[in-house]
Amino acid sequence: MEKIRRTKIVDLWTKPTFGEIVNVKGWVRTRRGSKQVNFIALNDGSTIHNIQIVVDLANFDESVLKQITTGACLSVNGKLVESVGAGQAAEVQATEIEVLGVCDNTYPLQKKGHSMEFLREIAHLRPRTNTFGAVFRIRHNMAIAIHKFFHDRGFFYFHTPLITASDCEGAGQMFQVTTLNLYDLKKDENGSIIYDDDFFGKQASLTVSGQLEGELAATSLGAIYTFGPTFRAENSNTPRHLAEFWMIEPEVAFNDINDNMDLAEEFIKYCVQWALDNCYDDVKFLNDMFDKGLIERLQGVLKEEFVRLPYTEGIKILEDAVAAGHKFEFPVYWGVDLASEHERYLVEEHFKRPVILTDYPKEIKAFYMKQNDDGKTVRAMDVLFPKIGEIIGGSEREASYDKLLARIKELHIPMKDMWWYLDTRKYGTCPHSGFGLGFERLLLFVTGMANIRDVIPFPRTPRNAEF
Amino acid sequence: MEKIRRTKIVDLWTKPTFGEIVNVKGWVRTRRGSKQVNFIALNDGSTIHNIQIVVDLANFDESVLKQITTGACLSVNGKLVESVGAGQAAEVQATEIEVLGVCDNTYPLQKKGHSMEFLREIAHLRPRTNTFGAVFRIRHNMAIAIHKFFHDRGFFYFHTPLITASDCEGAGQMFQVTTLNLYDLKKDENGSIIYDDDFFGKQASLTVSGQLEGELAATSLGAIYTFGPTFRAENSNTPRHLAEFWMIEPEVAFNDINDNMDLAEEFIKYCVQWALDNCYDDVKFLNDMFDKGLIERLQGVLKEEFVRLPYTEGIKILEDAVAAGHKFEFPVYWGVDLASEHERYLVEEHFKRPVILTDYPKEIKAFYMKQNDDGKTVRAMDVLFPKIGEIIGGSEREASYDKLLARIKELHIPMKDMWWYLDTRKYGTCPHSGFGLGFERLLLFVTGMANIRDVIPFPRTPRNAEF
Repeated sequence: MEKIRRTKIVDLWTKPTFGEIVNVKGWVRTRRGSKQVNFIALNDGSTIHNIQIVVDLANFDESVLKQITTGACLSVNGKLVESVGAGQAAEVQATEIEVLGVCDNTYPLQKKGHSMEFLREIAHLRPRTNTFGAVFRIRHNMAIAIHKFFHDRGFFYFHTPLITASDCEGAGQMFQVTTLNLYDLKKDENGSIIYDDDFFGKQASLTVSGQLEGELAATSLGAIYTFGPTFRAENSNTPRHLAEFWMIEPEVAFNDINDNMDLAEEFIKYCVQWALDNCYDDVKFLNDMFDKGLIERLQGVLKEEFVRLPYTEGIKILEDAVAAGHKFEFPVYWGVDLASEHERYLVEEHFKRPVILTDYPKEIKAFYMKQNDDGKTVRAMDVLFPKIGEIIGGSEREASYDKLLARIKELHIPMKDMWWYLDTRKYGTCPHSGFGLGFERLLLFVTGMANIRDVIPFPRTPRNAEF
Repeated sequence: MEKIRRTKIVDLWTKPTFGEIVNVKGWVRTRRGSKQVNFIALNDGSTIHNIQIVVDLANFDESVLKQITTGACLSVNGKLVESVGAGQAAEVQATEIEVLGVCDNTYPLQKKGHSMEFLREIAHLRPRTNTFGAVFRIRHNMAIAIHKFFHDRGFFYFHTPLITASDCEGAGQMFQVTTLNLYDLKKDENGSIIYDDDFFGKQASLTVSGQLEGELAATSLGAIYTFGPTFRAENSNTPRHLAEFWMIEPEVAFNDINDNMDLAEEFIKYCVQWALDNCYDDVKFLNDMFDKGLIERLQGVLKEEFVRLPYTEGIKILEDAVAAGHKFEFPVYWGVDLASEHERYLVEEHFKRPVILTDYPKEIKAFYMKQNDDGKTVRAMDVLFPKIGEIIGGSEREASYDKLLARIKELHIPMKDMWWYLDTRKYGTCPHSGFGLGFERLLLFVTGMANIRDVIPFPRTPRNAEF
């Protein structure tokens, strides 16, 4: 076979060089045709689109032809010509075909129309489908958009640790990390396990957030963001929970809550715009196949400014709705941690656009949020989105050493985990703010997928750590 | 205090607007001067450079002035003027000063010249030093360079899982992840721990590499890269080992070992060039303070093509050196896993430029590498660098189902962990290649730091998981 430099299929679509002899490589999606001519749809993962290979059967050995089955990997030389078929710009008239890898009829993706549940069971092969190709190309693009957004604005990407010996967010929901031999655990005279021989010489876990370390970085480098895996050992078997997921957490010195809201709104609009600008074909495919309202919803959040509303006013709107006869599953009252149905009512029915809810009751928010003068609320801000509910949670942080210390004591958070965090307030404290975005929540919004297990390559959930 | 939009110090240096009233915020590095005029060096983390604040003492209250100590956080309004002092372009003549956060004399960074060991103990504050500010800005820039390099070339960023139930690279070096109550472990009649109640319903660990999952993605999306945390529970207390580190692993369908070498060389040169182009001030600082040969070394790897040499020829060169009287600590013979001293001899003394060593004995390389026809070697490639030794390790992968299966059986790797990996060879296999780069190894090279604990914000090492 003549050696010709390979052209990716995405390039055949976007900058075709008609009349030239090209080489394409990829996997057979379908093969159809007559006894004289066959049409092979070849895909190489670079785009949702296949390239059509036109095969004049008379020119090829039967031994080669019979290996061209769904899933087989081919290298094809041929002339690139304009296609007369609908929905495709170019096709390749094959002159040489090499079968790089055969694929027998046990291949699970031979037929189309598998359920999402079945595709999760073959997560090692599902990126070969149109749907998951589209989802993972979008996932890539969203990650790139995030890095570009922050880099262009002078933020530094900061790697906070995954393994931690702190447990200030509640040990019950954390995964323990250990090298102890569980068959030979040593205990002291009180019956407590001795962690002296464990790898870190103490009990260690997987982090639930990089925020506290992110604040250390923001109060030295100015503006940082994290983007890394985060873990929750919650036994929640829902379409919205993962035990291992990726989180983005910017943290900015000298930003107050208003700057923080500006940043969050600009950031998420940038990501959505990026998806429309850079992944339109993939988004369009998902729109047409799964979620006819997807593109409209994406364009919708770009159009208008987000509503900015104190929690207390949000509660009033919800109470008015209840008084007017709207039925919620969960009760509404000042002090309640809003359920997704409440958030979506505000966004989808009342305001019909994204809402940033601020100044939540301190009891339902974390200890590090800046306390308002009313003694009841903190300078929290949650960004609420259509279909998703909370997509971003953040706050201005408590900058006062005394107030923060008092809150830590009030909540009985162990000081052994807090001394280094408190040092940021002790030595040159400054106003600062930040927020967290669950990457997969963003992807649910941008892809229109219904289950969070379908926007991450290999989901980790209760009783599932396959592949 | 008059509210003026803050200007970052990096912008005062790169695009000064002389004559304007500006606001700067940051932390006091030093304060010096006479009884009439003081000079404050203020830093906000955006650059290695401080901005000099000129304070006419007569214009300010003593109550404010006495709070301006090293480490204090200030907001300063003043006129930006050209500086007459050496080494600085601009200074701010203060008109208003607000102390946002005081800093008392217990601040550990008051005096300069702390040891690296001491700074590791206060890793929560060390990003406030010139050295670590420079290192972490470079770290950010290298991450951006990596994403840009791959994105521009049509690679997709692919998130492989951190928690895994496979243990094919040797369970002894892995961290176990569990939610079992270690005080109440259930055992079956044979005395084996029952993992049915563990979070994932089976024993789980932290990954040592995303490569196998990366191959799944490459054989569907075409060209991918991972960039995420990786874990090794090796009890190695050395300046080159971390228990938690970040790794980049590109994997490309249809690339053979030569394409793989081209990619690795282009990639690492791109990163080094990026550092010189985008972080010159930080690199220069580290060059001048720690490692006078740093910039020359960086420029050195850009100048020439890397040597490409089979392992067997490398051994001959080393054997010749021994014969000519060169003393190595470890023996040299065909089949040996090269020590750092051997690698550095080839790079620093024999060739005086980076070397890509290929075709290693199969016994010292992983099971998935493509077997050469000689029956003895595999299509591995290690990139060897001055000062660092191995910085990249990779290979063309074995594409033959039968050969791969035979090797897996030969090495007694459990098939329960391998069926999904083998499916890539069973269904439409293709030639493909990839490599792994330890991010912190790259950073050691680019920053000139001597200890890997000083290029990651919060190092995890035996008996150390602080912060």
